[in-house]
Amino acid sequence: LLNFVGLGVDRSLSLKSLDVLRQCDEIFFETYTSPPPDNDPLEKEISSATNGKIVRKVGRAFVESGSEILAAASTKKVALLSSGDPMVATTHQELRTRATQRGVATRVIHGSSILCSLPGELGLHSYNFGRSVTLTSDPIQYTAYEAIFKNLLQGLHTTLLLEWDLSKNFFLGPSAAVQKLMDSEADLKYGIIKSETLVLVASRIGRDNSKIAAATAKEIERTDFGEPPHTLVIPGHLHFTEREALAAMTGKDGNWFADNASAVQRLSVLMVEKYAKKTEEALARAKAALKPTEKNGALDYEGVFENVELYTKDGLRFLREGKDELAVLSVGYAEGLLDSLRFLGLLEFEW
Amino acid sequence: LLNFVGLGVDRSLSLKSLDVLRQCDEIFFETYTSPPPDNDPLEKEISSATNGKIVRKVGRAFVESGSEILAAASTKKVALLSSGDPMVATTHQELRTRATQRGVATRVIHGSSILCSLPGELGLHSYNFGRSVTLTSDPIQYTAYEAIFKNLLQGLHTTLLLEWDLSKNFFLGPSAAVQKLMDSEADLKYGIIKSETLVLVASRIGRDNSKIAAATAKEIERTDFGEPPHTLVIPGHLHFTEREALAAMTGKDGNWFADNASAVQRLSVLMVEKYAKKTEEALARAKAALKPTEKNGALDYEGVFENVELYTKDGLRFLREGKDELAVLSVGYAEGLLDSLRFLGLLEFEW
Repeated sequence: LLNFVGLGVDRSLSLKSLDVLRQCDEIFFETYTSPPPDNDPLEKEISSATNGKIVRKVGRAFVESGSEILAAASTKKVALLSSGDPMVATTHQELRTRATQRGVATRVIHGSSILCSLPGELGLHSYNFGRSVTLTSDPIQYTAYEAIFKNLLQGLHTTLLLEWDLSKNFFLGPSAAVQKLMDSEADLKYGIIKSETLVLVASRIGRDNSKIAAATAKEIERTDFGEPPHTLVIPGHLHFTEREALAAMTGKDGNWFADNASAVQRLSVLMVEKYAKKTEEALARAKAALKPTEKNGALDYEGVFENVELYTKDGLRFLREGKDELAVLSVGYAEGLLDSLRFLGLLEFEW
Repeated sequence: LLNFVGLGVDRSLSLKSLDVLRQCDEIFFETYTSPPPDNDPLEKEISSATNGKIVRKVGRAFVESGSEILAAASTKKVALLSSGDPMVATTHQELRTRATQRGVATRVIHGSSILCSLPGELGLHSYNFGRSVTLTSDPIQYTAYEAIFKNLLQGLHTTLLLEWDLSKNFFLGPSAAVQKLMDSEADLKYGIIKSETLVLVASRIGRDNSKIAAATAKEIERTDFGEPPHTLVIPGHLHFTEREALAAMTGKDGNWFADNASAVQRLSVLMVEKYAKKTEEALARAKAALKPTEKNGALDYEGVFENVELYTKDGLRFLREGKDELAVLSVGYAEGLLDSLRFLGLLEFEW
């Protein structure tokens, strides 16, 4: 039997977990997914609660290989302790799959996870969060940046977990994380991470010295948030109860908190507004370029002009109705109608 | 001091929570956000661990009003116990905000939450989940349906929490929930919930009789999953490790699990493919309608035809590159270029 036992964000054993540990023949404790605090009292607590059982600390390679754990669990009762929720880490999930494939029974004692504790710590509603992402030391962080953008388009908040590597004693800090997002902004230019963008920082959640802060991206870059772990949130649209909670917990005025989502425009909106305007202006110039002699000639210029006007207006209307694809199609069509006159060599006018 | 103490999905107190309860003068226990099991041993456990402290069960109205809790917490040490994570419930968050506004200190002891336990229980990666939603007894569930659609467009999984109302002894079951999604499908027709859509059901997570199941929407409708609580997941694109985990845990073959996301097409894709084809066909007819005498005449038909072809191809290329807006704009423009010949009265051809 292989028990995955989560210690939660506050690294405290539950009565149920202690029961499980008492029944176990071997206890492994992996310490690489979350930094253990100095003077960690956990081993002593476990020892005294389990009549002196020994806790064996193991690293990433040991869990990824998993052979020793699986061998032990196939004949004995084994526990693998970890911080947070044990199944959030991919390696633990894979170990569980392999155990099941070999016919080794598994059991999971869930723990509180930073992903679920974070919304409450910040006064945000968990159903207003989109996909969460991890920021790593890698210089290119487009995946995270794109995830924030897609969440903001829906008005949703984004949780940014920051890479932690115990073996290298590396922890990505809030200011380095924000700098990476600024770098992506400089490359991709969606206009979502600016100096004044609201960023929330949750530090050491579950510990006695936990702290939350709200600041602009510019401020974050200049601030030291103390020892890790830290987690960031880029909020989207704030519900008024979220704004109130943030205000109460940070001591700032409720109006101080920017709505990051309001600055994010759908690409369709930018495109339709730009092309509709250009087409309307070009239409006026095309009409002016038309010689009086051609006005009632063989070719129906008026039919073209009318349709350019109608489809441009349709595009703007579709946009207001949220029908982005139809809006873009309409303004593209209007532009094509008008431009055909130039390609044919019928009219000369500038765009 | 107001302590919010979470019991986690397995309703087990941690050593830290017990410490907190021992220090408290009053202990409230709200039972409306999650159904307490029969023969709940929790009160006795608390009583014996805290030297006989009394636990007072309270309902929704009591917590929503909050006046008694806040009054007590302003002079004494108070705990509010709840299942799962205490801050996931909006009423608890609001109570915390009000306490802070009144100068009453608060502390949160997080618990494992169904939202974070669920991915691991199902072998899915938490970063592959989009926004989660709650399905209620209300007949119209468009919000949930739209959330599933938006998540599927990104290949993401959706957690569906099911409404629970203790006061009415009502718990929305998996088959009723799927029926509601089918009703939304019938109304909105995005093509995301079909008979063969893969649905995952997690029942009684955290309890000894927990169970997970994978079935098609059609099967779910006909199956009784036993006593609540249940939570559903509509998976999006499955990573191969997720597929393996699901296979190991449900005993089904890995290939059995459908990719719900593959059936979901972006509207842009449908639109560009349709209009590009139509424009190419119309272009061929336009070329055929052009009289030989006009081919090298005063008007540059060839210039128009070439550009219609180029912009249609551009549209399809932009689509492959994921540049949906540009793709739609290009095919719209190509269509307009060609159609102008008809509006002018130069050529007659069918679309």
